Amino acid sequence: MIVKTEGGVTAAKGFSAAGCAAGIKKPGVDDMAMIVSETPCVLAGTFTTNVVKAAPVIWDRDIVRKGRGSAVVINAGVANACTGQTGMEYCAATAEAASEALKVEPDTVLVASTGVIGRQLPIDKITEGVRVLAGSLSDTAEAAGRAARAIMTTDTVPKQAAVSVTFSDGTTAFVGGMAKGSGMIHPNMCTMLCFITTDACISGGLLQEALSSVVPDTFNMVSVDGDTSTNDTCLVLANGLAENRAITEKDSDYELFREALLQVSTSLARMMAKDGEGATCLFECIVKGAASKEDAKVLARSVVSSNLTKAMIAGHDANFGRVLCALGYSGVQFDPSAVSLWLESKAGSVPVYERGTPLSFDEDYATAVLSEDEVRCIADMGAGDAWAAAWGCDLTYDYVRINADYRS
Amino acid sequence: MIVKTEGGVTAAKGFSAAGCAAGIKKPGVDDMAMIVSETPCVLAGTFTTNVVKAAPVIWDRDIVRKGRGSAVVINAGVANACTGQTGMEYCAATAEAASEALKVEPDTVLVASTGVIGRQLPIDKITEGVRVLAGSLSDTAEAAGRAARAIMTTDTVPKQAAVSVTFSDGTTAFVGGMAKGSGMIHPNMCTMLCFITTDACISGGLLQEALSSVVPDTFNMVSVDGDTSTNDTCLVLANGLAENRAITEKDSDYELFREALLQVSTSLARMMAKDGEGATCLFECIVKGAASKEDAKVLARSVVSSNLTKAMIAGHDANFGRVLCALGYSGVQFDPSAVSLWLESKAGSVPVYERGTPLSFDEDYATAVLSEDEVRCIADMGAGDAWAAAWGCDLTYDYVRINADYRS
Repeated sequence: MIVKTEGGVTAAKGFSAAGCAAGIKKPGVDDMAMIVSETPCVLAGTFTTNVVKAAPVIWDRDIVRKGRGSAVVINAGVANACTGQTGMEYCAATAEAASEALKVEPDTVLVASTGVIGRQLPIDKITEGVRVLAGSLSDTAEAAGRAARAIMTTDTVPKQAAVSVTFSDGTTAFVGGMAKGSGMIHPNMCTMLCFITTDACISGGLLQEALSSVVPDTFNMVSVDGDTSTNDTCLVLANGLAENRAITEKDSDYELFREALLQVSTSLARMMAKDGEGATCLFECIVKGAASKEDAKVLARSVVSSNLTKAMIAGHDANFGRVLCALGYSGVQFDPSAVSLWLESKAGSVPVYERGTPLSFDEDYATAVLSEDEVRCIADMGAGDAWAAAWGCDLTYDYVRINADYRS
Repeated sequence: MIVKTEGGVTAAKGFSAAGCAAGIKKPGVDDMAMIVSETPCVLAGTFTTNVVKAAPVIWDRDIVRKGRGSAVVINAGVANACTGQTGMEYCAATAEAASEALKVEPDTVLVASTGVIGRQLPIDKITEGVRVLAGSLSDTAEAAGRAARAIMTTDTVPKQAAVSVTFSDGTTAFVGGMAKGSGMIHPNMCTMLCFITTDACISGGLLQEALSSVVPDTFNMVSVDGDTSTNDTCLVLANGLAENRAITEKDSDYELFREALLQVSTSLARMMAKDGEGATCLFECIVKGAASKEDAKVLARSVVSSNLTKAMIAGHDANFGRVLCALGYSGVQFDPSAVSLWLESKAGSVPVYERGTPLSFDEDYATAVLSEDEVRCIADMGAGDAWAAAWGCDLTYDYVRINADYRS
């Protein structure tokens, strides 16, 4: 059984968190966070496929390979990307500071950064921040919330999700996470920054397998602006304190755990799309009737990634030809005369195109349907049974404003 | 010898053109154009790779395969894309009207449309427009200019270019063209709409070969918004009236002709990028030191296609990390520590990143450099000798405004 609950990274037993203002951003604004487990965790991670990988991505990948983690230190404001050897040294210095403050091994400390690319971290502020964070850890929902706020950059809301999952032996574990991401969001392997904790007892191999199977259908189906970041990182820490019978094979408990992870990841992915830079709404595309799952995914992601469909959503304008155009250049082969389209939201549903022919529809009604804060485009490709969902947002003046001014 | 000249599609001998207001757009606004050759032409064409192909693309592809053309009829306002069987019938009806008015075979009449997708052509207005155009043809530069204006949609300026080319036998031919394209511009095989005429005498096979070799380095290196249109069409009509010794093999005359076509295509491609919807400047990316030409092209196009680099140009902000990010997710493998970057314009040049390390630079000077109407980013990959150029534009509020309101 899986039940949605409140909270984020401290929902699972044995995890505490903190946020603080370390002075990287404006004075007094929280810009660092920490997650700590009271016992060592097995780890899973997925990272950006960008050839230009930020220093923390390289650092964390090594730690995930080694397999043991006890803490994560995160900063916003500076991404520690394109920073050469100095960037790697600053990852080590951050981990060393956490090691001293928390009495853990430095090679079990994960680090993550988000912010401006091509600038060095203010390392003295970072190491001082680590000491402050270590002194203010708490396992409350408030602490998780403060940590989720501290990792925001252009995000307008913190993003947390958690579920409880009851296994076959009657024990209950929690899976909870936080994420940030608003611009430079077009994840490929993973989203900007996402941290999920669980007290489930599961082997490191199966934890990675579960994460790797969930990411392609969740975070990798989000696009805000088509730009795959240098820093994309998704980490899962599992400390086993739920004391369920250890998950060491792909049995029903593994499936339950995977489903719990899928639900948390889907919630965080949708929150990220809805909070896309400048966005006023979540733009979901569901492609069904596709010849294969992979086709459905490529088609759905092409629609939510198009600047023109996104501007159409911003204008509440049922200019559905742009959806057909985006399906057409996705790279997937299909028969245009078999395609049908609907636009919908909680205000209603408007069929606009049926098997290759435009339909007439009430423009005012269509505008009303597209004026909700969550709108959906459904494409039936008429080619098979496969389906997929992708999430994006509208393209507004504010996206341009935010990104023309980002560093100032 | 190749010399830049004034004019467009009527620069070459034997070609006339016209534009008129057929009532497809607002009353009194020119929205149809025609190009006619006094003798039959050999043809070359490249077309969109979008799976969803507009009816005129399918119509023209067949005519280019047959190899003979005498006229082109173009309308703006409605794209005749996603219009089913009716759309194809309207192509035939348009060609039939031109056939009657011009006394040419209907299967030598090319058609092209640009505008809203998913709406049927007002065919009575189109056929009446054909008759008006046929009665007002002229071989003057004014007529070419009016035709170039009539095919505009969100374009703010007409786009024409022409050169004269003197062959080995002393004869001089002209290559002139017009193009339109401002949004939904990320050509793949060709740009939105481009028509090039020449009086050079060249075989159809070599004409197509020359065009196919020029398009990948010119129109296909432009991106305004990442959206590959359903209507992309580039046509070349060659009527042979220059009476040069026929170009039937890949000799020095072929190379001269190809170079002339390249110059006209490059000019039109740059004009299209600079007039991108909402754009205030041309954003050129030159990638050099790449391991291969293909790598250089993919890298350069990735940089000018990124919403974040484009917003950075709009903000005159030397946030060069976004350029590195866009290089990194392009799909090309490279060593980030070998890369160097400069930003430049006629106001100066600013080195910002050298072999993997950020450089310090004067922000005010960098802002001045990025405030010109043509700005350039140069990336040296440190991996080889290959280079390529790509052209885009900045991303501004006006892009969003234009596309949120397009149909109204």
